[in-house]
Amino acid sequence: MAIRIFITGGTFDKEYNELNGSLFFKDTHLPEMLTLGRSRVPVDVRTLMMIDSLEMTDTDRETIALNCLKTSEDKIVITHGTDTMVETARVIAEKVRGKTIVLVGAMVPYKFGSSDGLFNLGSALAFVQTLPPGVYITMNGRYFNWDNVRKNKKIGEFEKIK
Amino acid sequence: MAIRIFITGGTFDKEYNELNGSLFFKDTHLPEMLTLGRSRVPVDVRTLMMIDSLEMTDTDRETIALNCLKTSEDKIVITHGTDTMVETARVIAEKVRGKTIVLVGAMVPYKFGSSDGLFNLGSALAFVQTLPPGVYITMNGRYFNWDNVRKNKKIGEFEKIK
Amino acid sequence: MAIRIFITGGTFDKEYNELNGSLFFKDTHLPEMLTLGRSRVPVDVRTLMMIDSLEMTDTDRETIALNCLKTSEDKIVITHGTDTMVETARVIAEKVRGKTIVLVGAMVPYKFGSSDGLFNLGSALAFVQTLPPGVYITMNGRYFNWDNVRKNKKIGEFEKIK
Amino acid sequence: MAIRIFITGGTFDKEYNELNGSLFFKDTHLPEMLTLGRSRVPVDVRTLMMIDSLEMTDTDRETIALNCLKTSEDKIVITHGTDTMVETARVIAEKVRGKTIVLVGAMVPYKFGSSDGLFNLGSALAFVQTLPPGVYITMNGRYFNWDNVRKNKKIGEFEKIK
Repeated sequence: MAIRIFITGGTFDKEYNELNGSLFFKDTHLPEMLTLGRSRVPVDVRTLMMIDSLEMTDTDRETIALNCLKTSEDKIVITHGTDTMVETARVIAEKVRGKTIVLVGAMVPYKFGSSDGLFNLGSALAFVQTLPPGVYITMNGRYFNWDNVRKNKKIGEFEKIK
Repeated sequence: MAIRIFITGGTFDKEYNELNGSLFFKDTHLPEMLTLGRSRVPVDVRTLMMIDSLEMTDTDRETIALNCLKTSEDKIVITHGTDTMVETARVIAEKVRGKTIVLVGAMVPYKFGSSDGLFNLGSALAFVQTLPPGVYITMNGRYFNWDNVRKNKKIGEFEKIK
Repeated sequence: MAIRIFITGGTFDKEYNELNGSLFFKDTHLPEMLTLGRSRVPVDVRTLMMIDSLEMTDTDRETIALNCLKTSEDKIVITHGTDTMVETARVIAEKVRGKTIVLVGAMVPYKFGSSDGLFNLGSALAFVQTLPPGVYITMNGRYFNWDNVRKNKKIGEFEKIK
Repeated sequence: MAIRIFITGGTFDKEYNELNGSLFFKDTHLPEMLTLGRSRVPVDVRTLMMIDSLEMTDTDRETIALNCLKTSEDKIVITHGTDTMVETARVIAEKVRGKTIVLVGAMVPYKFGSSDGLFNLGSALAFVQTLPPGVYITMNGRYFNWDNVRKNKKIGEFEKIK
């Protein structure tokens, strides 16, 4: 069965608006990234929203959790801004059982030269294929259980709480 | 415990010689790639050789297998040219038991714009952390058991034999 | 005699701060860009300031003009934000005579994948070597006299006024 | 009047064939490069051939010179492999008078990360707009008269003969 990929926005998909120097969202780069990675993993990509995770509301998180619940696939990758990734993981974990759900983001937009996005996507797709059911954050080449991870905002890395 | 990474060369690490237009090996780009991926996975990188896998000899494969056997780590990633990756996997599988060993390569050099290298490295590092002991090829976002994979040279992708 | 390059900041040199998602200035990328372009033009690079051209004050423009006046070279390239490039060109033109002075910028930061910076730098260095004394804007592969150019902010391109 | 751009191949346009690891020619990247550079210079691009300049025959050079002669534009940029660029410039100089003709190449293919191609194209387009009639080589940010330049193959740079 295919892996479901839900797009929610985040740094991953930000682009540079050359007319005013701001960062904005247009379309997701996920299909382009999968092509670049020569991925042959069957996936089904759907965009749920395209927002900065700092602007994500409770309703948005409910929507994401609901989509995880309703989709027929039991392996799900969610692209998400890193700032509130852990909160969304918690909401999902409360509602969804029996599926392997991996949240992944990027510290630098994919379209910028120094992005970690492609590396992160490669690891997220691998983790979702191999980890047992549960909700995980995958960043920095590692995976974390949803209830034992935080973003260290000073250094921009994820780490275990205990 | 750290993950051991053995470098053997392959397309991954090829560079363009601008003086004569040929492709050649200098140093491995693995540390640079891990930095780009913001990887925080503890790794220990050692270069065993820097060759095109079409030029790899039986002795070279024995050397690789021997290093897998002797190193104290039980999780090992090997960067390798894709053309004979499956042969090397077989030699290792015959000699090494009880370790998770993942061979990974790239279709396009990391230094070229269209490389799959970073994606592949991300997935290899994830697979080696989660797969049970055994010898695997990881390419195209997927993993294959060493004895059930071949490179389809017409399309440049790995596929199951049966 | 060498060509003098003055750095003032602008989009050219902006970088992405992965800790807070903002754009900021660190060091200039000019030397790196000249190396990438295999430039063998003798140049002398000096950073005068590192600012967004929307924040450039009258005093800043005086400083730039003064440096153009005082430097011994008579061929000068100035990297500058595109938003107020034309204003700075006017201040320089009022104060400096007998030198070929070329202002150049970029619509997208050099470090981002889609930057026009390297193309613009190549053309600016060529124009400064071949144009007669005067103050020019060089963007979009073209050169403009300082008193006959404006930035069309709707499309992000420079165009002649008449 | 538009600038005529003739494509002849060379490193500029080489691509990496991921199926066999060789370098080859497909289509020219010139239009893509002009878009990246946000060029607004009116140009008319025509591909004359797509070959490595080491394989260029006398007939090929005659063809290029003939096209320069017959085209209505008097400003011409020719993309060309660097190895025999000087020979082609000589053949053109013998046949064509009264036009500004600039030959330009690259040391590294445009599609590879470390290419000088975009920088070189920017400078070639600027030089062709500003230099008096004649045949020139433009590389390394500089321009050379066709009869006073050679490629120093040891260091991969162009230099004056005397």
